[in-house]
Amino acid sequence: MKTVGILGGMGPLATSDLFNKIVTLTDAKDDNDHIHIILNNYPIIPDRTNYILGNGENPIKYMIEAALKLQVMGSDVIIMPCNTAHYFYEELTKYLTIPFINMIEETAKEIKKTDPETKKICLLSTQGTYKAKVYDNVFENYGLEILRPEEAVQNCVTDIIYSIKKGDTSLENIDKSILTSYLDSIKGKNIILGCTELPVAFDIMGIKEGCIDPTKILAKSAIRFAGKNTIED
Amino acid sequence: MKTVGILGGMGPLATSDLFNKIVTLTDAKDDNDHIHIILNNYPIIPDRTNYILGNGENPIKYMIEAALKLQVMGSDVIIMPCNTAHYFYEELTKYLTIPFINMIEETAKEIKKTDPETKKICLLSTQGTYKAKVYDNVFENYGLEILRPEEAVQNCVTDIIYSIKKGDTSLENIDKSILTSYLDSIKGKNIILGCTELPVAFDIMGIKEGCIDPTKILAKSAIRFAGKNTIED
Repeated sequence: MKTVGILGGMGPLATSDLFNKIVTLTDAKDDNDHIHIILNNYPIIPDRTNYILGNGENPIKYMIEAALKLQVMGSDVIIMPCNTAHYFYEELTKYLTIPFINMIEETAKEIKKTDPETKKICLLSTQGTYKAKVYDNVFENYGLEILRPEEAVQNCVTDIIYSIKKGDTSLENIDKSILTSYLDSIKGKNIILGCTELPVAFDIMGIKEGCIDPTKILAKSAIRFAGKNTIED
Repeated sequence: MKTVGILGGMGPLATSDLFNKIVTLTDAKDDNDHIHIILNNYPIIPDRTNYILGNGENPIKYMIEAALKLQVMGSDVIIMPCNTAHYFYEELTKYLTIPFINMIEETAKEIKKTDPETKKICLLSTQGTYKAKVYDNVFENYGLEILRPEEAVQNCVTDIIYSIKKGDTSLENIDKSILTSYLDSIKGKNIILGCTELPVAFDIMGIKEGCIDPTKILAKSAIRFAGKNTIED
């Protein structure tokens, strides 16, 4: 059985969501049947979107430190519940001798596995993930084109993401009508919740239909890498 | 800001519950304002109750290993989301040079702080926690006497605990009527959910009234130790 290392803190509630998904999706008969997980919730890592938009410190040295700590502690693989942080994936993996499961790539594989005919897919994410083309660059290798909502929808998504990051999970102070209208307009199509705060927010809002959750896909990949089955296998 | 180490895996879903409570109870304005947490979810630690009842391997060496790993990796304090495991608290802390917040003691302090007149308090727990007098031994120092439910109620509680441990959170296959009757019979009195699987189970069952949650009390103590306020401060 392999040990899974979680490079977390980006953000903390999204990290909690991933950990919870690994535990609840593991096919286990008792405590001892679960996976050894080492989690480094290191929230001092500077905001990824701020850096990509030219407004903040480069987070890479903190990410390397957090990942190496997980490696030193005995992790056999690293996973990272932050879509935007995957912008740094290539550089980060240069410093590691253990594998690093790429959440964006696992999501592309899952979409092609579920429906090989898919050509275009909608994405909700941070501004950083859009600007840095985190999804576009990986998805084009799978023949998948990323569609984005208009700016007003994106601004609403940004408000939701940063509300979850500060722990305001009521989302009561956010006008969500423009997002709801957008989701209605694309009904029947799938949409990627491409920021790890979004599956948390969509759970709170009670929206499930058509939503692709990269955190859940990553949790299942980690469970299988560790040598266990998921409850959905 | 201090780093909190979580000695977890006993069980994994209870560990997830503690991590989630720390994150959601921290008064933070963004990712960077949260606490650095290192979590070692080490579920191979043998079942504590089995050992106490004379049916299994002593878990202490695994617990020492897991705690020392947290210390080596830079934790400033250790917390452990397993009530029964606190039976080993004295021995475990002999091997550590960092503080270890005792969940049982924090719970006693909180009860006396909330109502200094409290003399007797009901406890739901594993058989191991009862047999080893984990609560009784600490609580008598605070002038608190532990009351236990009858054996049939206790058996129902044991079924619920081990159902959560294996990830069966529906609890549908368990006849909970005897527990419900017991809770009705003590209505108006407080009861300690003295196994970390129980706050998870009681959340699922929608029972809140009169319940004292040691996981939540521990989460708040850890937040304050780390130098932050809780949202309830």
